[in-house]
Amino acid sequence: MYSEVTLNTINESGPFLTTLLLSVQDRVGVLDECLRSIKNLNISLTRIESRPSRTPGWDYDFFVDFSAENTEQIVRVSETLKGITNQVKVVSASPTSATVGQVPWFPRKKSDLDTYANKVLEMGEELDSDHPGANDPVYRARRSEITRIAKTYRHGQPIPDIQYKPEEIATWGAVFRNLTALYPTHACREHQYVFPLLIQNCGYNENNIPQLEIVSKFLKECTGFTLRPVMGLLTSRDFLNGLAFRVFHSTQYIRHHSRPLYTPEPDVCHELLGHAPLFCDPDFADFSQEIGLASLGASDGDIEKLSTIYWFTVEFGLCRQGSDIRAFGAGLLSSFGELEYALSDKPEKRPFDPSKTALQKYIVTEYQPIYFVADSFKDAQQKVREFAKTLNRPFSVRYNPYTESVEVLDNKEKIIRYTQNIKNDMTILIDALERIN
Amino acid sequence: MYSEVTLNTINESGPFLTTLLLSVQDRVGVLDECLRSIKNLNISLTRIESRPSRTPGWDYDFFVDFSAENTEQIVRVSETLKGITNQVKVVSASPTSATVGQVPWFPRKKSDLDTYANKVLEMGEELDSDHPGANDPVYRARRSEITRIAKTYRHGQPIPDIQYKPEEIATWGAVFRNLTALYPTHACREHQYVFPLLIQNCGYNENNIPQLEIVSKFLKECTGFTLRPVMGLLTSRDFLNGLAFRVFHSTQYIRHHSRPLYTPEPDVCHELLGHAPLFCDPDFADFSQEIGLASLGASDGDIEKLSTIYWFTVEFGLCRQGSDIRAFGAGLLSSFGELEYALSDKPEKRPFDPSKTALQKYIVTEYQPIYFVADSFKDAQQKVREFAKTLNRPFSVRYNPYTESVEVLDNKEKIIRYTQNIKNDMTILIDALERIN
Amino acid sequence: MYSEVTLNTINESGPFLTTLLLSVQDRVGVLDECLRSIKNLNISLTRIESRPSRTPGWDYDFFVDFSAENTEQIVRVSETLKGITNQVKVVSASPTSATVGQVPWFPRKKSDLDTYANKVLEMGEELDSDHPGANDPVYRARRSEITRIAKTYRHGQPIPDIQYKPEEIATWGAVFRNLTALYPTHACREHQYVFPLLIQNCGYNENNIPQLEIVSKFLKECTGFTLRPVMGLLTSRDFLNGLAFRVFHSTQYIRHHSRPLYTPEPDVCHELLGHAPLFCDPDFADFSQEIGLASLGASDGDIEKLSTIYWFTVEFGLCRQGSDIRAFGAGLLSSFGELEYALSDKPEKRPFDPSKTALQKYIVTEYQPIYFVADSFKDAQQKVREFAKTLNRPFSVRYNPYTESVEVLDNKEKIIRYTQNIKNDMTILIDALERIN
Amino acid sequence: MYSEVTLNTINESGPFLTTLLLSVQDRVGVLDECLRSIKNLNISLTRIESRPSRTPGWDYDFFVDFSAENTEQIVRVSETLKGITNQVKVVSASPTSATVGQVPWFPRKKSDLDTYANKVLEMGEELDSDHPGANDPVYRARRSEITRIAKTYRHGQPIPDIQYKPEEIATWGAVFRNLTALYPTHACREHQYVFPLLIQNCGYNENNIPQLEIVSKFLKECTGFTLRPVMGLLTSRDFLNGLAFRVFHSTQYIRHHSRPLYTPEPDVCHELLGHAPLFCDPDFADFSQEIGLASLGASDGDIEKLSTIYWFTVEFGLCRQGSDIRAFGAGLLSSFGELEYALSDKPEKRPFDPSKTALQKYIVTEYQPIYFVADSFKDAQQKVREFAKTLNRPFSVRYNPYTESVEVLDNKEKIIRYTQNIKNDMTILIDALERIN
Repeated sequence: MYSEVTLNTINESGPFLTTLLLSVQDRVGVLDECLRSIKNLNISLTRIESRPSRTPGWDYDFFVDFSAENTEQIVRVSETLKGITNQVKVVSASPTSATVGQVPWFPRKKSDLDTYANKVLEMGEELDSDHPGANDPVYRARRSEITRIAKTYRHGQPIPDIQYKPEEIATWGAVFRNLTALYPTHACREHQYVFPLLIQNCGYNENNIPQLEIVSKFLKECTGFTLRPVMGLLTSRDFLNGLAFRVFHSTQYIRHHSRPLYTPEPDVCHELLGHAPLFCDPDFADFSQEIGLASLGASDGDIEKLSTIYWFTVEFGLCRQGSDIRAFGAGLLSSFGELEYALSDKPEKRPFDPSKTALQKYIVTEYQPIYFVADSFKDAQQKVREFAKTLNRPFSVRYNPYTESVEVLDNKEKIIRYTQNIKNDMTILIDALERIN
Repeated sequence: MYSEVTLNTINESGPFLTTLLLSVQDRVGVLDECLRSIKNLNISLTRIESRPSRTPGWDYDFFVDFSAENTEQIVRVSETLKGITNQVKVVSASPTSATVGQVPWFPRKKSDLDTYANKVLEMGEELDSDHPGANDPVYRARRSEITRIAKTYRHGQPIPDIQYKPEEIATWGAVFRNLTALYPTHACREHQYVFPLLIQNCGYNENNIPQLEIVSKFLKECTGFTLRPVMGLLTSRDFLNGLAFRVFHSTQYIRHHSRPLYTPEPDVCHELLGHAPLFCDPDFADFSQEIGLASLGASDGDIEKLSTIYWFTVEFGLCRQGSDIRAFGAGLLSSFGELEYALSDKPEKRPFDPSKTALQKYIVTEYQPIYFVADSFKDAQQKVREFAKTLNRPFSVRYNPYTESVEVLDNKEKIIRYTQNIKNDMTILIDALERIN
Repeated sequence: MYSEVTLNTINESGPFLTTLLLSVQDRVGVLDECLRSIKNLNISLTRIESRPSRTPGWDYDFFVDFSAENTEQIVRVSETLKGITNQVKVVSASPTSATVGQVPWFPRKKSDLDTYANKVLEMGEELDSDHPGANDPVYRARRSEITRIAKTYRHGQPIPDIQYKPEEIATWGAVFRNLTALYPTHACREHQYVFPLLIQNCGYNENNIPQLEIVSKFLKECTGFTLRPVMGLLTSRDFLNGLAFRVFHSTQYIRHHSRPLYTPEPDVCHELLGHAPLFCDPDFADFSQEIGLASLGASDGDIEKLSTIYWFTVEFGLCRQGSDIRAFGAGLLSSFGELEYALSDKPEKRPFDPSKTALQKYIVTEYQPIYFVADSFKDAQQKVREFAKTLNRPFSVRYNPYTESVEVLDNKEKIIRYTQNIKNDMTILIDALERIN
Repeated sequence: MYSEVTLNTINESGPFLTTLLLSVQDRVGVLDECLRSIKNLNISLTRIESRPSRTPGWDYDFFVDFSAENTEQIVRVSETLKGITNQVKVVSASPTSATVGQVPWFPRKKSDLDTYANKVLEMGEELDSDHPGANDPVYRARRSEITRIAKTYRHGQPIPDIQYKPEEIATWGAVFRNLTALYPTHACREHQYVFPLLIQNCGYNENNIPQLEIVSKFLKECTGFTLRPVMGLLTSRDFLNGLAFRVFHSTQYIRHHSRPLYTPEPDVCHELLGHAPLFCDPDFADFSQEIGLASLGASDGDIEKLSTIYWFTVEFGLCRQGSDIRAFGAGLLSSFGELEYALSDKPEKRPFDPSKTALQKYIVTEYQPIYFVADSFKDAQQKVREFAKTLNRPFSVRYNPYTESVEVLDNKEKIIRYTQNIKNDMTILIDALERIN
């Protein structure tokens, strides 16, 4: 469907991460032939994999990653491959993806997130001048030491523990004490419910910075979410794409000790106090993944909308709790000042409505003048799902948690298999109904 | 439901692996109180975990593993716990589980399979006298060296590679050559389809014994199945329980070089040539997990039935392929002699029907006189599911692949959540239908 | 469940239509025994029926209608019946239903709507003084002649045709000409779409008043809705209850010829030009039935809410049509004046939100100051369904279109059967997917 | 899809009942244009109807019935219509339907069954020479009198009652007494369960022949099945097609008084004692409709298979009841002799398996040498559904009980709407689960 690749724009220079997806029909020797043809393409291959086709039947799928020098090369290569099979799909990180009828590149399986390991908007080394640690060479060196873990981390490995220094633990302690005093009156029910579990099982307390690995394992057991170390800020697309796999990219370093209650960027306090507790909630996990799934292969414009929705929910969301309003956004739950402010009468509060929220401008450097209030995570998820339907992506995706991969539901056979899965689930449901008393 | 624990039998001596499942209602400090009470029980705890309750609501679940000295202790402990909460469930490996109204112990999450690491029916050291390597001390030492990996392996770790010796590779090569010559005419379509992929992606060839880790990763991507190293034969219950988690316990050592076409027990040739290819097939994976799920907490009698079904399918199954009959059982696909015999006119062939197959006696030391023929894996799965309904387990289970854990669908709230999941899947289905052209 | 009948209020005088529902277990002679016991109750029986139980199993259900002299009698009778079986449910039209723990009476099957035939708020004979025909004895006699049909009509019969008089046809013609000139610019897409079909198939034109029977048959083929003649206004409860069965109570007489563009009450112009076209639309039919189902056995307070929702949708609803707003309410589509006014800038327009719309006060004698705008019928249906969940009725209902009856889903067996039906539908779906190319 | 009409066979003479289905897109005046074009075709029209399209969207559907003089005319007419719209489908009773790529004619809505009123294999006037009443002119006159009702009956009318004569009632009484003595030991549980209800509600007793109308109404309330009077035997195709609409064609006359325990053809004893009780059972009703749905538009070969399945189930079926075998086939339940014989050791009994049963030859004039035993009606239904999938009809159908019509699920939009219905049912299910305690 989205293989119509013709260069109707000027050629642009890469390198661009590009994936070719080929399907070939099973016959003796076809796998070898195909492999040979690909190797003959004379491109800088970073991966070739052959797999059983997701489509029921007897096709094989090839996944070919290469670093395209320019957009012209993408077109040329895909034209050549059509000599082998007419089932060629191209997904590319190239900026002209949209115009040449391709789909923007997106990860297909959890391990594809390894490609983000090196990609980061703001490098650990160069802090903004307004960063409290900008002129502290010791802090900067320590930060580099820690981000190196993220750089070399690969899918499937345990996240290495950090031996945090007393000064770092003291910073954490200050944040911890201040925020936990506010939570009983300001945090949403879901956050309050899970926090004691994190204390009891993951070593949350004012004298210990919990390790990502133990927290990640706990999340995995609760909802299947996992943490993955990251060097710093990713692009919105990369970050949201991670959520599709229930992967949350998490920093491991801590803010500068000089201002324990302030940080201009995510740090381990923000991740572990703000984000982690919520990812234990099944409805919140569903909601977050929903945004992630909608972001896969979305246009740049749609990414911006989804990113804005993310901002006003996962980062700065409020929700209704009986007759009260409480915070569930991690940006609030990790900021002593804004948490109090957000629940006061000062800012404006509007009902969460993705089609409107998606268009709301926001500033990242100050307290928000407007917050959005969700009725519940379940309700928010449903609304995001409805909203996602209005985005003009030419395909639908589902996540297969068994294989930790995304399936593009773009043909009849896949849809039938999916429908059969649903029917099987109905069978289990009926059995369960029959057995309960 | 299954918490009625009264000792109506004579006391039996353990130790017995026992798990207590407690639910307590959220209120300030309840987690600490509960933890203290459990520690005061004065039992030999091997794990205490508190988790969000699977039941929607605001309960907490405690999982308490302990090694019970005897059945009396199980009763006493569970009675005491009822002082804390009336929501206590007991699952125990104790032989009198059934009689005291408990459910036989079963793993709840994938990592619980670690408890099997040490358990093995036949130890690597002591080979049966008829084993070709029984009197070869070098072989036995090598076997011990390899099984040590299984003994220390824990969930989540990569499986260590083995540096196979030339002699071992030669043995593999002999098996490989012989069997691959037969596959085109004797193996089922699914096996033939996936075999070239294993050659291309996992290093299957006559000069290389593939490593479990690379094969396991490949399976994971295909169907979510993984391999887990094992020291030797497990009990039927333990082995089948693993399948519920899409985990296949796999040996890593190889048969004795003196008789490359014979082995009295599973070895790496059997696992990689017989089993692994089939676990790449989604329908076969579903079928195998179905048997596993039915085995969780089943009575000893039902375990025997399921084990017999496993024997006549996963190990020695035949299936219809158009007008032909082909082999899909690993015991056949890894045995040059029996593979030819099974498809000849000599043995009897009956249609696969779980209620009858489950009662068929079999011998493990000779070629089977009777084989059962399945119409398809999908059909076999459905039949096993129907059969499972006739087993008298007082609850129904579903596997949650996100959290890699088993959920017991034993109350209304869990069933409602499950039904909502199905409805959500319907929403995705409708979206997919709307987007395809 | 709702059989707890104790008289905790003062005794009130009837007569009250009351239905007793009994279940008895199958054994030899039980039906006769039960029938005898009921006849011995010495009550004024209007119906006794024995039926197979809706609950899978081997129970029989008895439906016993009687006219209760007072609330005390209801209590006494139901107490006596508990001697026969402890499965007794009482639904009663008695005003103290709510306080004595009963459910307000509601029809269980389509033919139960016959009980409304005689019930009407305003009788044909006595017109309000402001009615244009109030002082016209010829008009009043003609009206009585026509309403007699409704009075004697019974479920299953064809609706008798009326030989309309030239004067009546002229009145219809004036209304028809005026409104059809406005429809292209003011009526919603669904109304415009179906109108030409009514012209071609049901004799809609300015020289002919279509007969209810032919229109009812046409609706039946489109969506299963049918018209049923009615003498005049029913209570809100009775009228909404009818919608649960896809039955629309429709007048057959026409407004007074002196003012063809005005009528203070529903007449055949209102029904056929305003209502009938919309009931041909599947989504609108679903929406209307949804309101009806929610009204069955609802409390008086909830009836008022649903009635208000009905008012602001089926009677005076607007809907979004691309960037326009159009009318779909029959009160608008049959009123030349208000149709123009409603789409002008004069009245206020708010988004349709059942929880708010349900509380909006309205006047029946003037143009509405506020209208509510739905996004689509499908969306409105979903919102009403969500709203219905918030009503505190202690049971859930489904409509069985095969048996034209309402099923109360109040036990496990019925829910399991319903779930199996859904699973069967999945099977048909899969088959259909497999067959389309 | 099935509009490819080219005459590749010799022209055959009719008349043939033929239906054309046209879809045209909504635009101003399109309905009138289309109607004019059809009238200009110069064919012998028996019906023209325009309807909203079943496909969501803004198409109109035309249903045009005409009596085709010969197959050439069918081809010519459909070619002409392609000038109006390229969405033309042809269903025809013509014998060359299959060869010219059309679908054999089948009823689309319940009222289409009126076309069968005149069609009957054996006319009432001419009895076979072996019929006990063949030479009794009084009996034959009476039979004609009764069958006239069937001939003039039209859908939607109440079935006229028959004033049975004393002699006829005596015949019924003899049959009734004999059979009811056998039922407790020979009839299946479902028959025994419902029989007392028919006695209590429908006037079943030895002194009264129940009227079709009252029995039909009772069935309608139980399962939605209705009886429709018929002159005599229909073709298999017509008869099975009726079951798709839950309509059972039923004779109203009674066997000859000279041999009360024998009849060579269906009569009112057979219908009311044998068939009617079973149609009260929801699972049996589902099963019977399943056969009917499979028969719509099926090839002649498939009709024969379905007819054989019908024979060995609805007419002569046995079923397992605990450890016993009981009769549920009406041919057995209305024949004193064969009922005893069938449950004796004399005949052979095989498990019901549609793919095998469908091919079993049978004789209509003697006791069956072979009977088939079903596990349950639910199981039988599922098996018939699986079997129906193997029939090579190029489309899938569902029955819409609201509109009493059959929907051909042959495009994406219909399938989506159907899927949404299923999702809506899930919503009701969840609501019901939430409300039960």
